[in-house]
Amino acid sequence: MSELPVSPLAPKNFPSMSPVPGVEFGAIAAGLKYKGRPDLFMAVFPEGTAAAGVFTRSKMPAAPVDWSKAALATTGGRMRCLLVNAGNANAFTGAKGKKAAEKSAKIAADIVGCAQDEVLLASTGVIGELLNVNSFKKFLPRIHAGLSGALWKDAASAIATTDTFPKGCSKVADIAGRTVTITGIAKGSGMIAPDMATMLGFVFTNAPVTPACLQALLSEATEKSFNATTVDGDTSTNDTVYAFATGNGEDTIDDPNDPRLADFKRQFGDVMVNLAQQVVRDGEGATKFIEVTIEGAEDAAAAKRIALTVANSPLVKTAVAGEDANWGRVVMAVGRAGEAADRDKLQIWIGDQQVAMNGMVSSRYSEEDATAHMKTSEIKIRVDVGVGSGSATVWTCDLTHGYITINADYRS
Amino acid sequence: MSELPVSPLAPKNFPSMSPVPGVEFGAIAAGLKYKGRPDLFMAVFPEGTAAAGVFTRSKMPAAPVDWSKAALATTGGRMRCLLVNAGNANAFTGAKGKKAAEKSAKIAADIVGCAQDEVLLASTGVIGELLNVNSFKKFLPRIHAGLSGALWKDAASAIATTDTFPKGCSKVADIAGRTVTITGIAKGSGMIAPDMATMLGFVFTNAPVTPACLQALLSEATEKSFNATTVDGDTSTNDTVYAFATGNGEDTIDDPNDPRLADFKRQFGDVMVNLAQQVVRDGEGATKFIEVTIEGAEDAAAAKRIALTVANSPLVKTAVAGEDANWGRVVMAVGRAGEAADRDKLQIWIGDQQVAMNGMVSSRYSEEDATAHMKTSEIKIRVDVGVGSGSATVWTCDLTHGYITINADYRS
Repeated sequence: MSELPVSPLAPKNFPSMSPVPGVEFGAIAAGLKYKGRPDLFMAVFPEGTAAAGVFTRSKMPAAPVDWSKAALATTGGRMRCLLVNAGNANAFTGAKGKKAAEKSAKIAADIVGCAQDEVLLASTGVIGELLNVNSFKKFLPRIHAGLSGALWKDAASAIATTDTFPKGCSKVADIAGRTVTITGIAKGSGMIAPDMATMLGFVFTNAPVTPACLQALLSEATEKSFNATTVDGDTSTNDTVYAFATGNGEDTIDDPNDPRLADFKRQFGDVMVNLAQQVVRDGEGATKFIEVTIEGAEDAAAAKRIALTVANSPLVKTAVAGEDANWGRVVMAVGRAGEAADRDKLQIWIGDQQVAMNGMVSSRYSEEDATAHMKTSEIKIRVDVGVGSGSATVWTCDLTHGYITINADYRS
Repeated sequence: MSELPVSPLAPKNFPSMSPVPGVEFGAIAAGLKYKGRPDLFMAVFPEGTAAAGVFTRSKMPAAPVDWSKAALATTGGRMRCLLVNAGNANAFTGAKGKKAAEKSAKIAADIVGCAQDEVLLASTGVIGELLNVNSFKKFLPRIHAGLSGALWKDAASAIATTDTFPKGCSKVADIAGRTVTITGIAKGSGMIAPDMATMLGFVFTNAPVTPACLQALLSEATEKSFNATTVDGDTSTNDTVYAFATGNGEDTIDDPNDPRLADFKRQFGDVMVNLAQQVVRDGEGATKFIEVTIEGAEDAAAAKRIALTVANSPLVKTAVAGEDANWGRVVMAVGRAGEAADRDKLQIWIGDQQVAMNGMVSSRYSEEDATAHMKTSEIKIRVDVGVGSGSATVWTCDLTHGYITINADYRS
């Protein structure tokens, strides 16, 4: 955790988190970068556990990303172990970084008693510094000796870097009369934090699904959660979301559209959105949480691109920081997105109030009402671009002096 | 002009500006928004003057943009008048805004004695407020009565909004033994300033070129000048660059690749780059001018997209503000750009020093030397992405507390 003050948008408490049958884990202070706090995390799963991953789209992926993509392909998505370190991203570290990733997987595999390829990795921290994994030989056996299924707050803390609070969410879902658990943790503070690359999210469940089914569910949910958030538009070399499902058995479900998964998909999606929103709520310097909804676009993809353009606009974000109901900047951002939009049918709402319609300011616009909404900490901006029925919602935070202070004034 | 302190990156003086044969103009304080400074500008050209325009790519173009695109098409690029107002963008003003644009062109045409379609328009200022052009009937005759070819600083001031200094540049070129003049003015401060939408650039010359030739030259030069700069990545509803060429005659050149234009193209391009760089130097809150060069990309377009991704990255821009030689953020931004790049061949220079090679930090990297460069006000970042021979250079400024102060703390 960072020594920065806790974000004013943080939830009051770390939530109650249910254990997931089959999932055991532990964390330890390995002193990789931080002192006196856990920074090394390992989770262990039963044989046959399904795993799925969504990775950064960066063309400069970190070594653990390369490793984990290959491992998922080799094993067909059957994993036994997840190993995560905070403080060093093992990114842009060349051939030595690749070897460090391989070696860390080997050390974990030997301790867990599985194949090297059955270990997924994630790293977060400084870019460009070599990761020394020799100490893993000392610390991973200690974690393994004390595995538990309950210490989720320690787990969420061990994967954090500049985060100001640990992030977790837990729900249950019904699959054909059977109750399953979905419990996840995440880290991130700034789409990438100062030098502390990365957004990470890990969701664990005992749902009975195959790797292919889990991958489909994870990919779809990621689009509407982690990939529907932005703090500063920057993308890390290490961004990774994993899902693990321990419920492998006779009635394992392979079809992501199986009607028995309806409730599970809803709850799984909710956990993902909740975790992603917590990352935004820990955005560097954030004082306002912003929901941007675009309606009336050509399709959902166009709506999302417009929404992200609004959400990434420095001028929209600084207007929110200044509690300024500056809808002209929203017009500008919608125009800049490059997607089809009918200027003369454009409608904009700030909070519940319609501020613009038919391509100009609404005759009923009350600056006073709009400003009252802007003074709250949960800001809603909704735009109908007037060309179709595509819609999307994304989440971001405001751009404040705090962001500049964290990223410019604190030297690395 | 803004009442903000003059940018520390401003040129020491407004440059010496040559008159352009045939171009007469004037400016007046019409009180559209500002008091005690010119905010209405009109230029008048001889019959047959070639004109060309490059406009915002925004899907929410302002009324004067719609008007001017149509006028250029109707006249085939033969224009007699340019009318510009500052303080009101006439953007997102619906049918009334369209009428205001038409009416302003009509008023100017009646005074100049030309067709309405021979008047080009540009507006810059607040979005969403109706532009009242009735006062133009009073002020444009006064401008017309005092037309001159010399008062360029007044002209540059009349088109400004939150700019902290007037922007001009003037050069001569040789076309087949004949010396022609190229003189331009620009405004902009922030890709769009607080509520003051817009970047504008107007370049005047007496070169003997046809409208089609001028359009080709302008489009090409804009890509390497105004479209190769960014302050905050935002795009205005009103961005416009015009070129006017009064040298219509018997030896008028139609082919933009005519060898007689070689020197003219170079000088014209230099004027455009100089003006565009002045806009960056007036970027809101800027304390450092940043040149980003990408080499080794698939092609020039890919290189430019990577360069703009680096130049728009809040994390790169805040690192420069903090005088932090944080090349890891450059790696992140290159990776995020989505263009082909070979992580393991990537090379990065900060100033003259190579800081990274072969996908990792250079063994000769001296943080001390890199930091010394970061302490200057003219920062150079160069990256070879290792896949081809495409290259591009773009310019931006750092992201500072000043930007937040201007855009969040000053209420509109």
